[in-house]
Amino acid sequence: MKLYDYKMAPNARRVRMFAAEKGIELEMASVDLGQREQLEDGYKAVNPRLAVPALELDDGTVITESIAICRYLDEIQPDPALFGTGAKGKATVEMWHRRMELEGLQPVADAVRNSVNFFAGRAIAGPVDFEQIPALAERGKQRIDLFYAMLDAHLADNAFIAGEAFSIADIAAVVACDFAKVAKKRIGDETPNLKRWYDAVSARPSAAA
Amino acid sequence: MKLYDYKMAPNARRVRMFAAEKGIELEMASVDLGQREQLEDGYKAVNPRLAVPALELDDGTVITESIAICRYLDEIQPDPALFGTGAKGKATVEMWHRRMELEGLQPVADAVRNSVNFFAGRAIAGPVDFEQIPALAERGKQRIDLFYAMLDAHLADNAFIAGEAFSIADIAAVVACDFAKVAKKRIGDETPNLKRWYDAVSARPSAAA
Repeated sequence: MKLYDYKMAPNARRVRMFAAEKGIELEMASVDLGQREQLEDGYKAVNPRLAVPALELDDGTVITESIAICRYLDEIQPDPALFGTGAKGKATVEMWHRRMELEGLQPVADAVRNSVNFFAGRAIAGPVDFEQIPALAERGKQRIDLFYAMLDAHLADNAFIAGEAFSIADIAAVVACDFAKVAKKRIGDETPNLKRWYDAVSARPSAAA
Repeated sequence: MKLYDYKMAPNARRVRMFAAEKGIELEMASVDLGQREQLEDGYKAVNPRLAVPALELDDGTVITESIAICRYLDEIQPDPALFGTGAKGKATVEMWHRRMELEGLQPVADAVRNSVNFFAGRAIAGPVDFEQIPALAERGKQRIDLFYAMLDAHLADNAFIAGEAFSIADIAAVVACDFAKVAKKRIGDETPNLKRWYDAVSARPSAAA
């Protein structure tokens, strides 16, 4: 089992952090996105979507999409239960995880990929090039502010994103917050509950994975 | 257990179709998005995110996000297994489902919400208004063409999106294809494999749910 990975890629970090929380050690193969290695023929043969992460199983099957990889890891190592437990618990984690993706990771990706020079002409990951849309970057930045404000209110009464237990929703959220720094959006003193949560999650050993 | 629903809403349709495939009958409460009923105080008390669908459990808990609702339904009625079976099977369904969302539903939503007059000033669902971005609608339309071409190639060798069995990935895909009609993007004769799959999935009783 081998994970195609890049240290700076937010989606790859989600998988690394998930695996670290599970205590799963993965063989790593680095694909240097900074050098556009994911666009070369070698990696194209592994993942024609030209994105990381990708998990290659021992039988040669390649699983792409970060959360699909996390689901696989969750099946082979159920503890700790990062997707929640019980019908209501699993639904609650899925709900908050989706919100972290739709209200956090997506706006941050919109902001970064449509404004940062490195992504000029590459506003969407994958095999087809798209030009940046500056108005979308602006909209992304506005939505990051809303995301931080929403989380600050929510975390006034919750230790973690989905309630009392650490879950995959916390992973998505902390990755979104760190990725947002690229768009110059940092958590400040005006959101103290968010700051408390961010410091706690960032101090977990998995956050450095 | 009550589902807040609107017949024309793509995300609500995903849940209705999922429930129908499971044989689960849900009590329905219609929220008329055509009349902006989701923005009124009554619904705001149910779901402050002001979107449908939302599932209210008998204990008063409200689950939002379509797939979180589907996960709940899957827990209370595991058969048929629409999220896949076994570690590799579940990961494969999650991978294809994610691709249907990221390469299908998202571009279609970009195209529709950023161009259709009804969504002027409401380019993103939820409590905050956003202006439409015409360039994003154009990008969405280009990506729908790529989505159809990708699916046509994939379905040359696969009966369903995630392989041999019908899954939640097929639900997301058929909802994306029907929603794309609003952006005047219809499946044509140039994608015969996609057409064959679309006709088969559309003929299932659940597609009319």
